[in-house]
Amino acid sequence: MSVKQQFINYVKKIQNYQEALSVIYWDMRTGAPKKGLAQRAEVVGTLSAEVFALETSEELGRLLEEISKEEMDFVTKRLYEEVKKSYDESKKIPADEYKEYVILQSKAEAVWEEAKEKADFQLFLPYLKQIIEYQKKFVQYWGIKNGSAYNTLLDKYEPEMTTDILDRVFGQLRETIVPLVKAINESPNKPDTSILFKHFPKEGQRAASLEILEQLGYDFEAGRLDETVHPFMIGLNSGDIRVTTKYDENDFRSAIFGTIHECGHALYEQNIDPKLNGLPLSTGTSMGIHESQSLFYENFIGRNEEFWKHNFKLLQKYSPQQFGDVAVEDFLQAINYVEPSFIRIEADELTYPLHIMIRYEIERELFDGDLQAEDLPKVWNDKYEAYLGIRPKNDAEGVLQDMHWSGGSFGYFPSYALGYMYAAQWKAAMDKDIPNFDELCAEGNLQPIREWLTERVHQYGALKKPFELLQEGTGEGLNAAYLANYLKEKYTKLYQL
Amino acid sequence: MSVKQQFINYVKKIQNYQEALSVIYWDMRTGAPKKGLAQRAEVVGTLSAEVFALETSEELGRLLEEISKEEMDFVTKRLYEEVKKSYDESKKIPADEYKEYVILQSKAEAVWEEAKEKADFQLFLPYLKQIIEYQKKFVQYWGIKNGSAYNTLLDKYEPEMTTDILDRVFGQLRETIVPLVKAINESPNKPDTSILFKHFPKEGQRAASLEILEQLGYDFEAGRLDETVHPFMIGLNSGDIRVTTKYDENDFRSAIFGTIHECGHALYEQNIDPKLNGLPLSTGTSMGIHESQSLFYENFIGRNEEFWKHNFKLLQKYSPQQFGDVAVEDFLQAINYVEPSFIRIEADELTYPLHIMIRYEIERELFDGDLQAEDLPKVWNDKYEAYLGIRPKNDAEGVLQDMHWSGGSFGYFPSYALGYMYAAQWKAAMDKDIPNFDELCAEGNLQPIREWLTERVHQYGALKKPFELLQEGTGEGLNAAYLANYLKEKYTKLYQL
Repeated sequence: MSVKQQFINYVKKIQNYQEALSVIYWDMRTGAPKKGLAQRAEVVGTLSAEVFALETSEELGRLLEEISKEEMDFVTKRLYEEVKKSYDESKKIPADEYKEYVILQSKAEAVWEEAKEKADFQLFLPYLKQIIEYQKKFVQYWGIKNGSAYNTLLDKYEPEMTTDILDRVFGQLRETIVPLVKAINESPNKPDTSILFKHFPKEGQRAASLEILEQLGYDFEAGRLDETVHPFMIGLNSGDIRVTTKYDENDFRSAIFGTIHECGHALYEQNIDPKLNGLPLSTGTSMGIHESQSLFYENFIGRNEEFWKHNFKLLQKYSPQQFGDVAVEDFLQAINYVEPSFIRIEADELTYPLHIMIRYEIERELFDGDLQAEDLPKVWNDKYEAYLGIRPKNDAEGVLQDMHWSGGSFGYFPSYALGYMYAAQWKAAMDKDIPNFDELCAEGNLQPIREWLTERVHQYGALKKPFELLQEGTGEGLNAAYLANYLKEKYTKLYQL
Repeated sequence: MSVKQQFINYVKKIQNYQEALSVIYWDMRTGAPKKGLAQRAEVVGTLSAEVFALETSEELGRLLEEISKEEMDFVTKRLYEEVKKSYDESKKIPADEYKEYVILQSKAEAVWEEAKEKADFQLFLPYLKQIIEYQKKFVQYWGIKNGSAYNTLLDKYEPEMTTDILDRVFGQLRETIVPLVKAINESPNKPDTSILFKHFPKEGQRAASLEILEQLGYDFEAGRLDETVHPFMIGLNSGDIRVTTKYDENDFRSAIFGTIHECGHALYEQNIDPKLNGLPLSTGTSMGIHESQSLFYENFIGRNEEFWKHNFKLLQKYSPQQFGDVAVEDFLQAINYVEPSFIRIEADELTYPLHIMIRYEIERELFDGDLQAEDLPKVWNDKYEAYLGIRPKNDAEGVLQDMHWSGGSFGYFPSYALGYMYAAQWKAAMDKDIPNFDELCAEGNLQPIREWLTERVHQYGALKKPFELLQEGTGEGLNAAYLANYLKEKYTKLYQL
């Protein structure tokens, strides 16, 4: 057997284990009976240990070594690069240290949960300090990028992203968003949001979600919709891309906008070139690009005026008491309501990027500056006051709200805002090719939009890196102006500023 | 680490892989999107190969060897016996032959499906012949039991079962059933079964199924109910025992009686001693004993007069147009309707054992006599005529109806009838301890019944063998008289013979 074939078979075997783990993960989060979970964790442990052994084996080391000496076709080369990157990431950390870290991580997650419940940062602090210490050590093993430890962490989630780029684009966004938020706060125009919180029966929410998924182009022969507590999309393999949602009978938005969001992720993975099936390249190329697809659908389609002029009748059908007498214009005002708030995941479209910038600045200072973990609550609250004009009353609605740091995921947060900027940039490029975008939304004919994204983004999976996709798909590098302009135009009009 | 601990860890690791495969299997049969199935089969292949490697490894051989020299506690000893049995079963067959056989098996299953569709036995015949040849060779490797090759096959599904015992008990049953069926056929009393086939909405069937599961004592924190095409119960681990059912809107019986049947299986596995969790002993001790639990619930509770006097209102609630004006007595006559028919899985309670006897006699002659595969259609049809008074018009409703032989599962069929005999024997023993059985059914208070079964059967899992359980739980060995008497009494009364 050729080295290439051996290498591909080996990688596919790892992928098969990962797929088994994904089925188990999906099951655990969509209704697995609770009395079976402890034993199921043993199963996850057994399979994960096998994956780790396969990913760091001498055999894989030898295959990587041998194949690197050969001429490789494009797909094999990208496969090699991806596998080599994660192999190095695992191998460079001494096995003992990594084991200690995994144990610390699982303790830290449990303590974080308790600390959040009790709004007690001091409880979490000693664990957080250790997590940060380990991450700093790991960065040393992996190697500092262009003089910045934080760059090394960014690269894990968004290849080639740097603090230089982020400082620039976030600065630009801040200059647009902060004054806009201030103007809206001072504006006398306040939409009536009470219509959002009336009773919408769960079965109706499910039926509406299914109809919307269908309209967005979700392929039900390659996926399914289930209920969960914290919604997610999961790609098991290229023919099995599942979405989940949450039905809150007193706030339909979590189901409807959540489903549209997860559908954006799912359309990405359902439309990757089938030749990548079974390989680790059959996935999104980065967290940010993935998020660009979910946010494109959630914001640029799901909050589009024409989209709702076409679809409002759906909500009226499934919740007539709530929406029967409501004008679609009032509905649009309500779903686009802006108000500074404490919790990132509940934030509106305009203030959301500010939540991300705050976290980014803190993380950068932790790794490249001299910010200490003990100072986090104060710094956090100061920044909320400076950017959003509100100050958290306690750490549960402040620095303890997100679980990311307890898992050591420093460098992850920027992806959310990057996804948003990428999405606006795709939209601007799409407008040149599809000038009748609004008309298509008005007709419920979203196929040309999905096809455009498949051609520029989806099909490549992880074959191209984020900046390559962006450059080739929009003709330029990351440009925050598109998002800034979109927000300025939209909210100036909505609030008649 | 002690040899015992090493052995237990090793066995638990295999069990963890099996559990992962079970999650995947359940998922594939309860709604996994079809476009993902081909790649999912690769995952099953990878994990199954690993299980086979673990089950036949030199390491396991060494552990079995070492532990056999030690003093073992009762649980470890039974664990050793079970693992050793399957280890020997796999190891005694030369690896090459086994591999050829697995390939043949998967081809044979596909050809059987086609042959059944076309009602063309000749298509299937060459594959069936080979399957039988392999099974005969395997029996030679495993060793003939008491001069009978078929005994060796029986023992795989029902430990210690022999043709001598089956000839005796089946003979006894036949003497009761055949004349009863004849008398019923000639009886002028024919119940009106048309009420069974009216429209019963799926959602109502699901709601009724859930209420009945609750009443039977199914633990929803350790299980769930899902929809499928061919219903089954699956034990993932002792805290996760799932049931599935099928909703036919024109015949509610498949959902209601099917759910009760699968619930009987599930109650067995939900009530095994938790100390066996994670071990291969945390399962039913044999196919027959497992079936005794499902059939106990399906027939001795699910067809009990008092059970329906209590529960008929449920069906009336969820299908008022169908049952609103029906008297429970007429309902009972209808669900106990007897009529000889061709298809085993659609047979009524009284004629069902005849379907099994026919298959048993054929299998015994194939392995211990000189029956040839080419003669099967004629022998099959002759036996249906002799036992049931009807002759299949073609092989699809005759010899090709069951998939068991295409998979090489010779020796499996008797378990179904054994389960039925065991169930009647448990019922007779239970009557001594719970003389108010009918009253409990009338009150919907089934807990004492479930507890009795847990005490005598469930808790032991595979710790005790079938005959041990039966002897200790009923005070005697297998006795067909209990089933014969039950059937005679019930149907003489129902049909006023």
